Amino acid sequence: MKIIETRTAPNPRRVRIFLAEKGVQVTYEQRDLMAGELKSDDFSALNPFQRVPVLILDDGTVISESVAICRYFEEMEPDPPLFGVGPVGRAQVEMWQRRAELGLWFNVAQAFRHLHPKMAHLEVPQVPDWGEANKGKASEMLEFFDRRLRSSRFIAGAGYTIADITALVAIDYLKPARIAMPAGLDGLARWYQEVFARPSAAA
Amino acid sequence: MKIIETRTAPNPRRVRIFLAEKGVQVTYEQRDLMAGELKSDDFSALNPFQRVPVLILDDGTVISESVAICRYFEEMEPDPPLFGVGPVGRAQVEMWQRRAELGLWFNVAQAFRHLHPKMAHLEVPQVPDWGEANKGKASEMLEFFDRRLRSSRFIAGAGYTIADITALVAIDYLKPARIAMPAGLDGLARWYQEVFARPSAAA
Repeated sequence: MKIIETRTAPNPRRVRIFLAEKGVQVTYEQRDLMAGELKSDDFSALNPFQRVPVLILDDGTVISESVAICRYFEEMEPDPPLFGVGPVGRAQVEMWQRRAELGLWFNVAQAFRHLHPKMAHLEVPQVPDWGEANKGKASEMLEFFDRRLRSSRFIAGAGYTIADITALVAIDYLKPARIAMPAGLDGLARWYQEVFARPSAAA
Repeated sequence: MKIIETRTAPNPRRVRIFLAEKGVQVTYEQRDLMAGELKSDDFSALNPFQRVPVLILDDGTVISESVAICRYFEEMEPDPPLFGVGPVGRAQVEMWQRRAELGLWFNVAQAFRHLHPKMAHLEVPQVPDWGEANKGKASEMLEFFDRRLRSSRFIAGAGYTIADITALVAIDYLKPARIAMPAGLDGLARWYQEVFARPSAAA
């Protein structure tokens, strides 16, 4: 079993944090996204969308998409549960994970992809107005999560979950995306300090 | 238990098809998205993102996000499984569901939201260049799924899953989004005929 990734990219970091929380060791193989190594024929055969990470099981089965890879390991190593517990708990984690992903992660990524000169060959066409619109959307989502985290220890509730991982990695991507953190988000700052201090954050 | 929805919107249709496949009966309550009924204080208290559908359990627990609602019912009524079977199967369904959602559903929705005059009060700011870019991205995804469906009965493999529901509803939204179906996609057409003929498609 191995994971092919680009160490500096945000999606592979989500999977590394997830696996560190699970205590799962995996072999990583690096491909340089910015050098075009994901556009090679051999990598495209693994993932036609030319994105990392990709998990390759010992029998050759290929699983791409970060959240799908995380879900595989949740099934194989259920403890600690990072997708929630019980039908209602798992639905709530899915809800918060989607809010973090479709509403914060995505906004930050779109701002980065549509405004950063280095992304011009990967995001075709770049639409700067869309990138700028996403800066505002990202700020609104940060304020939303700040309100949530004033009354909840973690994003989905009392326990650390994949929703925290998604939000943490998105927030660490604000700087490359040139999005300023709004002032006064004390709830978010309290949570960030806690999740960033976990050993997994450095994985 | 009840679901609050707007009958004509695509996300609620995903949940209705999912529940029809499960044979689960739920009470539906209508709110008119286009008339601004999701912006009311009472609905915003249920879902601050002012989107449908929203599931309200008998104990008052609120679950929003279509896929989270579907996952709740998958847990409560496992048969037939629509999120896959076993660790590898569930990871593969997640992978294909994400490809259908982030790569086709999303493109169609962005084209609709950024180009349709009726969406101007919901998508602020509308960025027409981004809407146009998504028409091309949607066409590429349709071609991708056509290749897939020439060798696979359903999107995620041999069984009908939530990935088929997402792709079906996205394809039925091509017309309002004014995206033309590329010619010659015989694999996609064969699959569409099969999934559209299921009684659930009319739910």
